[in-house]
Amino acid sequence: MSTTKQDLVNVNLGERSYEIKIGNGVLSEIAKTIKTVSPDARCVIVTDSNVNSAHGDTLRAFLDGGGIAHSTLEVSPGEQSKSWSVFQQVVDGILAAKLERNDLVIAFGGGVVGDLAGFAASVVRRGMRFIQVPTSLLAQVDSSVGGKTGINSAHGKNLVGAFHQPAEVLIDLDVLKTLSPREFRAGYAEVAKYGLIKYPDFFSWLEQNHADVFSHGEGLAKAIQTSCEAKAEIVAADETESGQRALLNLGHTFGHALEGYTAYDGSRLVHGEGVAIGMMLAHRFSNRLNHCSMDDVTRVETHLKAVGLPTEISQIPGDLPSVETLMSFIAQDKKVKRGALTFILTKGVGKSYIADDIPPSEVFGFLTDQLTK
Amino acid sequence: MSTTKQDLVNVNLGERSYEIKIGNGVLSEIAKTIKTVSPDARCVIVTDSNVNSAHGDTLRAFLDGGGIAHSTLEVSPGEQSKSWSVFQQVVDGILAAKLERNDLVIAFGGGVVGDLAGFAASVVRRGMRFIQVPTSLLAQVDSSVGGKTGINSAHGKNLVGAFHQPAEVLIDLDVLKTLSPREFRAGYAEVAKYGLIKYPDFFSWLEQNHADVFSHGEGLAKAIQTSCEAKAEIVAADETESGQRALLNLGHTFGHALEGYTAYDGSRLVHGEGVAIGMMLAHRFSNRLNHCSMDDVTRVETHLKAVGLPTEISQIPGDLPSVETLMSFIAQDKKVKRGALTFILTKGVGKSYIADDIPPSEVFGFLTDQLTK
Repeated sequence: MSTTKQDLVNVNLGERSYEIKIGNGVLSEIAKTIKTVSPDARCVIVTDSNVNSAHGDTLRAFLDGGGIAHSTLEVSPGEQSKSWSVFQQVVDGILAAKLERNDLVIAFGGGVVGDLAGFAASVVRRGMRFIQVPTSLLAQVDSSVGGKTGINSAHGKNLVGAFHQPAEVLIDLDVLKTLSPREFRAGYAEVAKYGLIKYPDFFSWLEQNHADVFSHGEGLAKAIQTSCEAKAEIVAADETESGQRALLNLGHTFGHALEGYTAYDGSRLVHGEGVAIGMMLAHRFSNRLNHCSMDDVTRVETHLKAVGLPTEISQIPGDLPSVETLMSFIAQDKKVKRGALTFILTKGVGKSYIADDIPPSEVFGFLTDQLTK
Repeated sequence: MSTTKQDLVNVNLGERSYEIKIGNGVLSEIAKTIKTVSPDARCVIVTDSNVNSAHGDTLRAFLDGGGIAHSTLEVSPGEQSKSWSVFQQVVDGILAAKLERNDLVIAFGGGVVGDLAGFAASVVRRGMRFIQVPTSLLAQVDSSVGGKTGINSAHGKNLVGAFHQPAEVLIDLDVLKTLSPREFRAGYAEVAKYGLIKYPDFFSWLEQNHADVFSHGEGLAKAIQTSCEAKAEIVAADETESGQRALLNLGHTFGHALEGYTAYDGSRLVHGEGVAIGMMLAHRFSNRLNHCSMDDVTRVETHLKAVGLPTEISQIPGDLPSVETLMSFIAQDKKVKRGALTFILTKGVGKSYIADDIPPSEVFGFLTDQLTK
């Protein structure tokens, strides 16, 4: 039951603080973790059918080994499960399992499962605790840390949800080995994002070491740990996004608009790919507004291309969106303030900032050029 | 726009603290209140068709007078609106109105509207602020204060929800004049509850002054203010019900079971009537367990009868429930801990306490006697 090497990242949020455990095989510590968080807790595992097939029996064996009672709720893989109907199913399923206030929900899957299960935990009996066991690179470096949970609405992505911090996060590097190369790459977009936001040395390190990260070498643990530390630092300073936490949305306003236009069809575009193109657009838009040099734009483009991430809207299979379509999704996005649009822009690699005064006409002009170039 | 007399109760919850304004005509202060809470806020009013007909135009006129943009979402009156489907409608309606993070939801109605609108506000964009404007006596003295919000599930009442504190509570005594005598009486059950929990002097005062309270005399303001102060004190000491806040559930475990058995059919039993019978049962059960004297039981019964509240399960129209039916609802109730049942019992008027070790067999025997007497 002991793991070889394990890194710890603390998320400092006062009485809502928690630890992130990172390492190969940390899943084997699930029973010990649960007993620390809530002795005698019973658990409901929320997972999707892909993760359940690949790793569900392993998780259940560790729980059985620790004498922890559990049941499993399985949802369909994919963004479509962040819906009202699946949310209601998960909440009712947790209630049907008769969990009590000291019991725990285990979010076992990628970002969709984490957002869905965390939000469900937040509303069952007005708030149950939950443990994040993220199984995708995207979830490990981004969505499992920081307490943002939620589902999508007809009015836009993640517009319904809660800030609900996990009691613990277990990041097992071994489970990443079953990810498809495409999903791994998509998660890497969020890793690169931390460098671009405010950690230029980390971005330089990634430029040098991305091959090692992608081949599951020693660099992978460092990339994940540094990403979690970066996110933990930003979240601890601004838990409910009244300020600097918005920097984490670099690339996301454009990215969400692209995901909206593909109707969240993962065969065309997955979230991390949308973020990659979105980060590229944020740098080009910043350059157009004379905030960021063309050298920086080229540097970002070179790196994203080197790891195989898309950098152009035209790389999304299917018809190009119209500018009007993208603008309507951007206007729906929640980072809007009194008509003027809020974007995360940049003055160069590692120098992002919040601009809350962008006239829609500027964005319209920029996107028109991007779609016709 | 100035009101004559106004009482203030502070709910002390650190950064989530807020004021309760109580008085005749305080609704006229809504625009001033909103400008204090969030200058430039736009509002969505969530209300039910009864309250909207009786007072909606008055509220909207005050908002118009203060230059505050607003729209209205109307739901059906009654407990049936605390459902998944109506919850989704309200959340989507707030999103459709394009409220932003600094805007406000106004919960304008009784307990159902407050619970529903407050929960909706808690999940839109991961948390919007809201103002409680309770229009029933029950909501004014109980549900609008303390931040418990939520909806019902097939598995039980209020099992899905959030702790979400309002930004302000406006209690206008004038709106109570359109309440039916039955609804007013039902709200009074919660007023009497505070005396029974831990304020025996208040209970004595109610025994002397209930006629004045029921005729909307000066005692009404005092009864409401004292109730809000009592609730604020208990909530401030235990916001998320990890301890003493559970005292507020006096009469509620039995009461919820009775409401469950009538399927929340308000023509048979409204919440406050269930609480009145439930408080009576809690006193009789405490007496059976030798914790409470028969004199205290008689005193409570005399007072509840004096104001016209029911005190017997047999007063509910329709067939009597079976003991098994009531026990199954009690087991579903969320105040259950590892098999043993938690009840709020009492050592006499003003001396309630939490008993978390009640064997189900004791409850079964007691209810059998109650149903066959």
